[in-house]
Amino acid sequence: MKNKKSQYEIFREKVKIILYGTNTILGRMFDLVLLGLILLSVLLIMLDTVQDISSKYHYQLWICEWVITAFFTIEYVLRIISIQKPVKYIFSFYGIIDLLAVLPMYLSIFFPGASILSIVRALRFFRLFKILHIPQISHQSFQLKEAIEASKEKILVFIYFVLISTVIIGSIMYLVEGKESGFTSIPMGIYWTIVTLTTVGYGDISPQTPLGQFIAALVMILGYGIIAVPTGIVTAEFAKKSLRDITVSTKNSCQICGSQLHFDNAKFCHECGSELHH
Amino acid sequence: MKNKKSQYEIFREKVKIILYGTNTILGRMFDLVLLGLILLSVLLIMLDTVQDISSKYHYQLWICEWVITAFFTIEYVLRIISIQKPVKYIFSFYGIIDLLAVLPMYLSIFFPGASILSIVRALRFFRLFKILHIPQISHQSFQLKEAIEASKEKILVFIYFVLISTVIIGSIMYLVEGKESGFTSIPMGIYWTIVTLTTVGYGDISPQTPLGQFIAALVMILGYGIIAVPTGIVTAEFAKKSLRDITVSTKNSCQICGSQLHFDNAKFCHECGSELHH
Amino acid sequence: MKNKKSQYEIFREKVKIILYGTNTILGRMFDLVLLGLILLSVLLIMLDTVQDISSKYHYQLWICEWVITAFFTIEYVLRIISIQKPVKYIFSFYGIIDLLAVLPMYLSIFFPGASILSIVRALRFFRLFKILHIPQISHQSFQLKEAIEASKEKILVFIYFVLISTVIIGSIMYLVEGKESGFTSIPMGIYWTIVTLTTVGYGDISPQTPLGQFIAALVMILGYGIIAVPTGIVTAEFAKKSLRDITVSTKNSCQICGSQLHFDNAKFCHECGSELHH
Amino acid sequence: MKNKKSQYEIFREKVKIILYGTNTILGRMFDLVLLGLILLSVLLIMLDTVQDISSKYHYQLWICEWVITAFFTIEYVLRIISIQKPVKYIFSFYGIIDLLAVLPMYLSIFFPGASILSIVRALRFFRLFKILHIPQISHQSFQLKEAIEASKEKILVFIYFVLISTVIIGSIMYLVEGKESGFTSIPMGIYWTIVTLTTVGYGDISPQTPLGQFIAALVMILGYGIIAVPTGIVTAEFAKKSLRDITVSTKNSCQICGSQLHFDNAKFCHECGSELHH
Repeated sequence: MKNKKSQYEIFREKVKIILYGTNTILGRMFDLVLLGLILLSVLLIMLDTVQDISSKYHYQLWICEWVITAFFTIEYVLRIISIQKPVKYIFSFYGIIDLLAVLPMYLSIFFPGASILSIVRALRFFRLFKILHIPQISHQSFQLKEAIEASKEKILVFIYFVLISTVIIGSIMYLVEGKESGFTSIPMGIYWTIVTLTTVGYGDISPQTPLGQFIAALVMILGYGIIAVPTGIVTAEFAKKSLRDITVSTKNSCQICGSQLHFDNAKFCHECGSELHH
Repeated sequence: MKNKKSQYEIFREKVKIILYGTNTILGRMFDLVLLGLILLSVLLIMLDTVQDISSKYHYQLWICEWVITAFFTIEYVLRIISIQKPVKYIFSFYGIIDLLAVLPMYLSIFFPGASILSIVRALRFFRLFKILHIPQISHQSFQLKEAIEASKEKILVFIYFVLISTVIIGSIMYLVEGKESGFTSIPMGIYWTIVTLTTVGYGDISPQTPLGQFIAALVMILGYGIIAVPTGIVTAEFAKKSLRDITVSTKNSCQICGSQLHFDNAKFCHECGSELHH
Repeated sequence: MKNKKSQYEIFREKVKIILYGTNTILGRMFDLVLLGLILLSVLLIMLDTVQDISSKYHYQLWICEWVITAFFTIEYVLRIISIQKPVKYIFSFYGIIDLLAVLPMYLSIFFPGASILSIVRALRFFRLFKILHIPQISHQSFQLKEAIEASKEKILVFIYFVLISTVIIGSIMYLVEGKESGFTSIPMGIYWTIVTLTTVGYGDISPQTPLGQFIAALVMILGYGIIAVPTGIVTAEFAKKSLRDITVSTKNSCQICGSQLHFDNAKFCHECGSELHH
Repeated sequence: MKNKKSQYEIFREKVKIILYGTNTILGRMFDLVLLGLILLSVLLIMLDTVQDISSKYHYQLWICEWVITAFFTIEYVLRIISIQKPVKYIFSFYGIIDLLAVLPMYLSIFFPGASILSIVRALRFFRLFKILHIPQISHQSFQLKEAIEASKEKILVFIYFVLISTVIIGSIMYLVEGKESGFTSIPMGIYWTIVTLTTVGYGDISPQTPLGQFIAALVMILGYGIIAVPTGIVTAEFAKKSLRDITVSTKNSCQICGSQLHFDNAKFCHECGSELHH
């Protein structure tokens, strides 16, 4: 019995290395196969919604999706079995996505049409960076994340003010244009305002009266100035990060106190005063 | 008599703390309830303009709006009563908005349809920052305001030149395209130019002749370069503010070697290693 | 005889001060009246092209335009008479615009419809800055001009590459989509590409085939990255100018050698080494 | 025989100078003629696809194209003959383009319609910078290239995340809107999402249901914040390059007080006033 358990233990460890590891050749190969399957699966689900393709190859697509789902299910079960703390994995971000990636197909047995929800598998792509583990790209995506995070608050404050403005502008346009021009309600007016301020401009609703067009022109010019604001916020964050690279460097860290940021040519640590050895 | 007046005094003071204060629990709770009511009220007015909802629930919506208006009216009266200088409040920005928030409903008794103007209540949201009093957000919104203010003049000069250009381009398009393509007048041509230069592009009017399309392409490429200008202005202001935070400061110069540029929190001169005395 | 000539001289000088001067009250008032007339004139020409207004008030508008034209003609003649070097004025930028502002009305006697060209009067607005002579605004418009000029070359190089790309993309779309989707020729394909790359997106022509839509999506994502380039160019120029203000100041100029740029807290001139006195 | 070969050698050398050289007058003139011919050729191919022009002047255009093709063919052959390492040229970027520029016309003998592929000649314009050899423009285009290259990785990471988001948003819109609004499949939903996120906004497909319009508004506001990211990335790169030019340098440190930051052309230390020795 002990022997068998030990074999099971070895099996678990092997599986864990393949599923979670990215350093062994087998683990890396598995990751690439997984990525390929996710890509294939997402493409299949997409194509299944195209009338022409679906009517001809629905059965073939249906089989492929089940095969991939079976593979993902086995993978999910193995991930739970092989890991030390399965509960933590199950309720982690990727654990939930892994479950959501297989659930819809099983639901489709009872509710036909639910299979389309499998598209959520696309979220598994987010793991790509972890999997590929290219330091340079990880660094870039970290910088991106950092800059976006730093500007998040300012952008939220900005969007708050923009939203209040859209309510006011949307109401004015509803009153000015009326139902004939497609401004059937205030929410519709707000929708139009957002479409215009963001410079998307579908043209499904557009002002028809001279006054409405005059106000619309003002809104556009306002939007012209306004679109600069989030750009300015994000850019300033990026510039901050980029400039830090050229003015100060982390190359000559202090060997006494560990302080890292100094001018490129600093001779003494500005924290503890000890000499820096390049 | 004196006792009664004193009671009225106490009442006034209590009301003032609740209405204007943001530090007591009661004052804060009142603010949150008020915010909720404004949000509810704005949503109700919006929904009342949607045909499907209005035809079914018009009566219920109408009652709700009157209840909220009554609440806002009482609040407005109490605000006047409880404050020391009521005249100053009445003619302040928020005082006027508070009045405008209740007036339309009373006007709607005589002029049905005026109730829609209650949407101006959305402006009361601007008070949110004051109410919530989150230092970090206040700081962000202050920075936003400062950067926009600093770039206001440059943007106005820029828009002045853009507007002159739209008159010229709009007239050319009117002459080239003529009435068949929707360019029915010079103001229409200017409207089209603004729609195009701001990259909104509804497509309700678009050039049909080859020459018109050629000029339109030129205008778009012009707009391409031009949209960069307000962005550049605002971004430079943000960058200025952001960089000021991270750039090294010249306040704590080294008293031994005279070196001036150090990090804000440097303890030792990074040139000669001697201690810095702030 | 001599006396009369002298009177003419005095008249010329007076006229010159009123027309060209911006410092006397009379000269300033004349400028403001002129600005008002230009604005009125441009509005009248615009309104005359609006069917509804033109059919009712054409005669009144026609008279107003002639009165203003008469005024502008007298002004033009006086400008030539009063100035020392009339030829230089006549062939200067503003001299030509002043002539173009009156010519169309006289041409309209022989060619009805030419009166619309009077819209060129809008260009006289460019003189506003000169006239108003507000130092701060002049400074802002100078900074704008400088930043745009500095980035002109880079933007031209960029547009050159974009134009080559539009030829290639436009041809591909013409081949893929064909005449049914509105891509009737390669120039039309190029027009569509410019409309898409600049994110204007009228929607008068839009791809209908799956392959065409796929390529269009690629073009949009390309345009997404590309639109950042002119913005980046202009912004960097603005940032350069803005940052120069905060890092070095021109306040403590050297009294010995006249060198102007120093760090805000520089104690010695970095040019001649003499002490700086704040 | 030897003499003849020598003549051939002289001919080869002369041809090489004309074709590849940009310093001799003859070489420069040839380059300008070539540029003119490429421009003419591209215009002719474009015009040939315009119905009105093609139906009238097809024969004339056809002859012109053959003449230009003949010229390009001779040029191509001479380029191969005159160069030392013809194989290297043939498989170089410009070598392949030169071949592609003539091939389609010969193919059109067997496959009518292939002549349109000659539009690939537009790529020969890329050589313009090499040909014109204006140092300033080369410098600008180099800076552009460098900034775009430096931001390439960050933008790719960004687009990767945007693409995953478009799959999710596109699927939601497909489920919410359904086939009536034009969201006929998930790929169509993704196409709509890209059109909206990039603010192109054709309006060929636009949400019709209230829920769909609500989600669309959210997507637009998201796109509003998102469009700032590539701009921020590119701008930071440009700013980095621009600022490096104006920022003070640390190369000429003061040998007396050790102060390091000075203007590039400072002659004296701005701290202690002692002379700087470069």
